[in-house]
Amino acid sequence: MELTVYLAGEIHTDWRDRVKAMAKEKNLPLTFVSPQTNHDRSDDIGESILGKQPDNLYRDDAASSVNNFRTQVLLQKADVVIALFGEEYRQWNTAMDASAALTMNKPTMIVRTTSLIHQLKELSNKANVTVETIEQALDVLAYIYE
Amino acid sequence: MELTVYLAGEIHTDWRDRVKAMAKEKNLPLTFVSPQTNHDRSDDIGESILGKQPDNLYRDDAASSVNNFRTQVLLQKADVVIALFGEEYRQWNTAMDASAALTMNKPTMIVRTTSLIHQLKELSNKANVTVETIEQALDVLAYIYE
Amino acid sequence: MELTVYLAGEIHTDWRDRVKAMAKEKNLPLTFVSPQTNHDRSDDIGESILGKQPDNLYRDDAASSVNNFRTQVLLQKADVVIALFGEEYRQWNTAMDASAALTMNKPTMIVRTTSLIHQLKELSNKANVTVETIEQALDVLAYIYE
Amino acid sequence: MELTVYLAGEIHTDWRDRVKAMAKEKNLPLTFVSPQTNHDRSDDIGESILGKQPDNLYRDDAASSVNNFRTQVLLQKADVVIALFGEEYRQWNTAMDASAALTMNKPTMIVRTTSLIHQLKELSNKANVTVETIEQALDVLAYIYE
Amino acid sequence: MELTVYLAGEIHTDWRDRVKAMAKEKNLPLTFVSPQTNHDRSDDIGESILGKQPDNLYRDDAASSVNNFRTQVLLQKADVVIALFGEEYRQWNTAMDASAALTMNKPTMIVRTTSLIHQLKELSNKANVTVETIEQALDVLAYIYE
Amino acid sequence: MELTVYLAGEIHTDWRDRVKAMAKEKNLPLTFVSPQTNHDRSDDIGESILGKQPDNLYRDDAASSVNNFRTQVLLQKADVVIALFGEEYRQWNTAMDASAALTMNKPTMIVRTTSLIHQLKELSNKANVTVETIEQALDVLAYIYE
Amino acid sequence: MELTVYLAGEIHTDWRDRVKAMAKEKNLPLTFVSPQTNHDRSDDIGESILGKQPDNLYRDDAASSVNNFRTQVLLQKADVVIALFGEEYRQWNTAMDASAALTMNKPTMIVRTTSLIHQLKELSNKANVTVETIEQALDVLAYIYE
Amino acid sequence: MELTVYLAGEIHTDWRDRVKAMAKEKNLPLTFVSPQTNHDRSDDIGESILGKQPDNLYRDDAASSVNNFRTQVLLQKADVVIALFGEEYRQWNTAMDASAALTMNKPTMIVRTTSLIHQLKELSNKANVTVETIEQALDVLAYIYE
Repeated sequence: MELTVYLAGEIHTDWRDRVKAMAKEKNLPLTFVSPQTNHDRSDDIGESILGKQPDNLYRDDAASSVNNFRTQVLLQKADVVIALFGEEYRQWNTAMDASAALTMNKPTMIVRTTSLIHQLKELSNKANVTVETIEQALDVLAYIYE
Repeated sequence: MELTVYLAGEIHTDWRDRVKAMAKEKNLPLTFVSPQTNHDRSDDIGESILGKQPDNLYRDDAASSVNNFRTQVLLQKADVVIALFGEEYRQWNTAMDASAALTMNKPTMIVRTTSLIHQLKELSNKANVTVETIEQALDVLAYIYE
Repeated sequence: MELTVYLAGEIHTDWRDRVKAMAKEKNLPLTFVSPQTNHDRSDDIGESILGKQPDNLYRDDAASSVNNFRTQVLLQKADVVIALFGEEYRQWNTAMDASAALTMNKPTMIVRTTSLIHQLKELSNKANVTVETIEQALDVLAYIYE
Repeated sequence: MELTVYLAGEIHTDWRDRVKAMAKEKNLPLTFVSPQTNHDRSDDIGESILGKQPDNLYRDDAASSVNNFRTQVLLQKADVVIALFGEEYRQWNTAMDASAALTMNKPTMIVRTTSLIHQLKELSNKANVTVETIEQALDVLAYIYE
Repeated sequence: MELTVYLAGEIHTDWRDRVKAMAKEKNLPLTFVSPQTNHDRSDDIGESILGKQPDNLYRDDAASSVNNFRTQVLLQKADVVIALFGEEYRQWNTAMDASAALTMNKPTMIVRTTSLIHQLKELSNKANVTVETIEQALDVLAYIYE
Repeated sequence: MELTVYLAGEIHTDWRDRVKAMAKEKNLPLTFVSPQTNHDRSDDIGESILGKQPDNLYRDDAASSVNNFRTQVLLQKADVVIALFGEEYRQWNTAMDASAALTMNKPTMIVRTTSLIHQLKELSNKANVTVETIEQALDVLAYIYE
Repeated sequence: MELTVYLAGEIHTDWRDRVKAMAKEKNLPLTFVSPQTNHDRSDDIGESILGKQPDNLYRDDAASSVNNFRTQVLLQKADVVIALFGEEYRQWNTAMDASAALTMNKPTMIVRTTSLIHQLKELSNKANVTVETIEQALDVLAYIYE
Repeated sequence: MELTVYLAGEIHTDWRDRVKAMAKEKNLPLTFVSPQTNHDRSDDIGESILGKQPDNLYRDDAASSVNNFRTQVLLQKADVVIALFGEEYRQWNTAMDASAALTMNKPTMIVRTTSLIHQLKELSNKANVTVETIEQALDVLAYIYE
């Protein structure tokens, strides 16, 4: 049984590559999809396609319309969602994706360090599972296939 | 036509009272509901009802289960959602509530200062309307009744 | 049994007033809601609330976000939708509202003159009922109460 | 990840062929579906199958029932919808398809020239993305696969 | 707790009046709605509103569009559906209404004589409850309030 | 694009075989599914699996539970539904299947002779398309692939 | 804001009366509904309405069809569900009601003693909140109104 | 037509192996999925992944969050659900899975011995089919392919 996994969240570390490598090592039949992880590309995609916008507000709105389009396509294809929260930034996109996934009844797992327990407590409680490391996240995915 | 409005977000300022006062002044037939705005009460509600928990992780999980129960009841009753993002904190609950509301097809408005444009760009784009002040939010609500 | 009727469509004639007068005359317990029918107000509502926009594209987008927010609130409250197409303009809003209502399983009636039969044929076929005059539309509404 | 794209809208130009050619050039794994693009065939399909109808109203209704059946099958299969509005005609079918797709939560993109900004403003705002050329639309589709 | 009950089915006997009288006698807080029970009026409603049609096929289609509009409004308002099958006619409307109600998750009860057991077996099995008399149907409704 | 077509209705003639033969001849990539068409097997399936039942009521209920289970599995797999009404019997199963399919938003076509126009008028009007012969039904299916 | 609370579960103790008394004492604007709590009446309702059945299997099936009809009506009306598990019996109805409520997105609370922790662990985890006493359940309900 | 079957319930006997063997013998194109059937593994999975928990309540909650995640993934993939109730234990998970499946409109079959008729009567009545042996369950599955 092949599953598609949407990897929401943190884009400044290589956690997605590590997830993929571990999944490969465990021979799990998973396909991974994710938001645009090139930060500059993600911020620039609106103007890159639609041309120069009047100011940063419109530049950001143009970019986010393309990013949201992409996310909606991929999230609807996903069987499972993993949302990883990093230490930096406000990461409202990650919270937005995780909450949308949960409201769409997608089985959703949150990965966060213990330093974020308090701030993420309502979202963690709403998620199916909350773990602290991507190794643990892979253990949960592997458990589906036992 | 009476409408119920869920006021998600920022709990350390009196913006909800100001929203209610303005709605009253404009004679709008609105009922407002909101998350628990007493921060200590919100953090303590789990242990207050279920008793002492082993440590902060469990204390937070107990509190959030009660807070999420409350939010789900009130959000399902709401016809409209307003989510205000403040300058401080990560406010993942606010993002979670706004995204859940949008996924449930609740008409949703975001209030945020210009300093948050970039960080909130995907959520703003997904929302029906984004404004900068609660006065503007009230103008939008009043427009429903014109 | 009270019903809420959303009156989509044409805003440059007084057809909504005539509908309301006829409903009153027939003593039908109906509440009518509708889009903003003041064309200038509708076009200006974005800048009126959010301030001057860079150019007409952004002015229109700002206005439409508020108009769409309003429509979504009222359409979700409606038990029945009537969409009237006039002779002038392209009226894509009317087609958008009627199609959204039908996809939401709202019982939906279209009012159009015989001159529009061909152009509206797919939407007419998708609607529950198509009539030519608002007198006929009222007859259909009255039939619910027989 | 293969995606099915429904190409709604304008049927008197070769834009669909150009879209397909560009997708092929970019090696995007897309399958394209669309409404009947032979105008005469589309208008005649009811009588062609069901036989001569009493007059144009019934001829049009017979044709549209078959066209709507086809559209519903293909739209439900689509992962993404692109709706292109041309300069001519009222194109209520295009608006109907785009609004139905959006209400079904299909990620939907609108292609329209700047001359149509004002008339399409509410539908553009409701859509995920609005672009001006099919080249831009392809850029958005390609971005899903980056 | 007030409930709205849609009384689908047989229109040539006075069973709806008997249901209402029994509900009144038992002091049940029920509101009853139903299809048009005047057979001639039901058959004629299309031409009555839309004018003379080319032949019986179109006359019937015009009537059924208005009848279906009415049914959809009332069925969506109903909390409970009772469908009574009589001895005569094919009563496809009754089967259509009962099946639509069940697919919409409306609690649905079927009333039919033992002579119809075999012919109605799949629909009876799909319904929540099947009884033989309207007295029994009222007993089931009254049981909700015990 | 492969489609699955559920063939509801009449089981005493060979219309399903003719449909399949015509689809093959036209090279349409269709998979056909249908209810149990062996009438005796269909009536006997409950006792055949569950053993002798107390009387005909229970025998019929046992059979219909298995038949309905089968229908629900296959109907949920179907992209398109064709319901053929014959001259004989009351065929409440056919009406039940067609109405369930329509309520589930499955594109649905009805095949019926002109002798059944009046009795089937509401269901015909609710269906996407109504035709008179299976040749016409195949023409509609083939039109999807043009 | 008035809420309707469905009290699922244990029927051999007076916990529902105690819940109602506490709610009254706290002045909470709640309406309570529940399954039939008279065990004999619940077991006998099928034969009481439909007459003597062939044996216990059919007697039980007749009773459960009426009980399930009642439950579906009341559960759909409920804004909140409380499911109390007692020490005795297998209480599969309670688990069935709680799981149905959760799948319908009804905010759901479980009340169970610590002796049942292990056996109820998956259902407790799936529920919004799990408490040990009805006093705690009332505290959670009261918290909605703070 | 390949179908995925979720085998809920009893984990201390080899009934799933017997089901698979019989399906193979009958050449049915079925894929079977199921909850974790190693009881110790199922109870330990939380601590195994997340580490030692403070006490049994938290140990159970950690395990159940992973088990529920797994179940949700597999249940959403299933076309059909079979829930077998054994003689021992309270098996609230089985009731929870069966009720969730039924509420999600998954065609669901219950297997239970006659000794459980009374206790399972409401769930049996709600299910599509109830049988007494897995041989009968296979007969029902095979009937889909006749």
